[in-house]
Amino acid sequence: MSATAHTPAERPVSVLGLGMMGSALAAALLKAGHPTTVWNRTAAKTGPLVAQGALPADTAAAAVTAAPLVIVCLTTNDDVHKLLAPLAGELRGRTLVNVTNGTPGQARELAGWARDHGVAYVDGGIMAIPQMIATPGAYILYSGDEQAYAEHRETLAALAGTRWVGTDAGLAALWDLSLLTGMYGMVMGVAQAFAMTGRAGVAPKEFAPLLAEWITAMVHGIVPGTAEALESGQHLTDVSSLAVNQAAFPNLLAAFAEQGVSDELFAGLQPLLDRAVAEGYAADGLSRLSELLKTQ
Amino acid sequence: MSATAHTPAERPVSVLGLGMMGSALAAALLKAGHPTTVWNRTAAKTGPLVAQGALPADTAAAAVTAAPLVIVCLTTNDDVHKLLAPLAGELRGRTLVNVTNGTPGQARELAGWARDHGVAYVDGGIMAIPQMIATPGAYILYSGDEQAYAEHRETLAALAGTRWVGTDAGLAALWDLSLLTGMYGMVMGVAQAFAMTGRAGVAPKEFAPLLAEWITAMVHGIVPGTAEALESGQHLTDVSSLAVNQAAFPNLLAAFAEQGVSDELFAGLQPLLDRAVAEGYAADGLSRLSELLKTQ
Repeated sequence: MSATAHTPAERPVSVLGLGMMGSALAAALLKAGHPTTVWNRTAAKTGPLVAQGALPADTAAAAVTAAPLVIVCLTTNDDVHKLLAPLAGELRGRTLVNVTNGTPGQARELAGWARDHGVAYVDGGIMAIPQMIATPGAYILYSGDEQAYAEHRETLAALAGTRWVGTDAGLAALWDLSLLTGMYGMVMGVAQAFAMTGRAGVAPKEFAPLLAEWITAMVHGIVPGTAEALESGQHLTDVSSLAVNQAAFPNLLAAFAEQGVSDELFAGLQPLLDRAVAEGYAADGLSRLSELLKTQ
Repeated sequence: MSATAHTPAERPVSVLGLGMMGSALAAALLKAGHPTTVWNRTAAKTGPLVAQGALPADTAAAAVTAAPLVIVCLTTNDDVHKLLAPLAGELRGRTLVNVTNGTPGQARELAGWARDHGVAYVDGGIMAIPQMIATPGAYILYSGDEQAYAEHRETLAALAGTRWVGTDAGLAALWDLSLLTGMYGMVMGVAQAFAMTGRAGVAPKEFAPLLAEWITAMVHGIVPGTAEALESGQHLTDVSSLAVNQAAFPNLLAAFAEQGVSDELFAGLQPLLDRAVAEGYAADGLSRLSELLKTQ
């Protein structure tokens, strides 16, 4: 069961779940020289990987017992639980790396189940699309059993950059979803900005460079500034206070209406700014909003 | 009335409205050597600028007639209209550069009024906070009377970088508000991301570098990609379809709830993704959202 008898590239790995992401992970392991066993509920999906040298397993149990490191990549964590619950015996003593998308709470639940059955659990949050696996810039966040992670880190590095975020198994999903949240906010802003300029006949390619440059400049000011304020608890600003933003935002809403662009993605911001000012934070900066979003 | 009798740095300028921004603009003109006349409804605000060499005007009319270039920076365009309506005669033949925050429609209205009274109207959208005026990175978007802009561009360059966006007077405000919209989306994402990680005890300064790097990487992919899709009308993607995002977003909402973070800033996104898929755009990328936000 120990991986130490193998040189790094010879360490066997099993991959369960061969959707676009699972297939990309298995292909990266094969390319790095790892004996890779693959399994998928629909066996046809093993074809392209077998052509690249993968060993097909007839059952999930056979895949699990083929390697000390088992990577699982399904659609939901509910699928993971249903697949693995009957295989606790086969998994005992092995490392389970679960890169299925899910919430921190789901990861913690699976980690608890794994601990109860002598399985080393590592949760992974993949910060990449399948096409980016094993290319520079892609990375995977890991959390959970630190010893198991350290033992297999070199193998996992064949998939993407590795970043350890802590022993709470939920942290990889938390960081992953928090980064995605940041991206979705940016996407909402970009979609709205292009809708606005599009309405006035501004060519998207004329507007795009300035938009990208502007958001990038703002990110590099606002993100560290927010971190600083949150760490110190000092949100006062002489730059862009909540009162100034509260007063300025109606201009934006009026412009959305003027241009015939829906405000549905921004409907939550004015009430939050109003609440911030009403609660006495008029002179604070936008960093205060992070605190106000905490509901309990 | 012509500015051509003066060398660039000798051209006189008047600034009406000496809030934080107006004062910063006047100070930048003085520093660049322009004879600068200043006026404010509350005369006390002229003090610091007079100490820097500004000429105080007792009335707005006196300020207007002191220079061929009149820059106005008030709280709202309604204030601009009220202040200048009685001064049409004094303004005739001069250039009015209005950098007051407002909507494209308000700028077009003022441009129409100016045209009716023989005033050259240029609207400005300041992409900077007062502290950034006359520093690298700050710029002002201009639109309206192109000849007047060309005549005074060198003077305006003392304030910040200049960028001409078109003869429709509303365009500077439109670009300005669209860039701000992009920023507000990013701010919502950042606020939510820090609220999420903060709930789990992740140190803001540990999370911040990865967040800034991630959003920056995404901006540089998504903004040009969206422009490309909008120009071609081709939104199909094999990277991150609306169906995939629709299926993934409930994980985020579940994680917000798990972590005790309000979803108020993101409440509009799931319904929009649902609508996009229901309307047949499941295989399109997020760029399609810009089209769906257009309401008429």
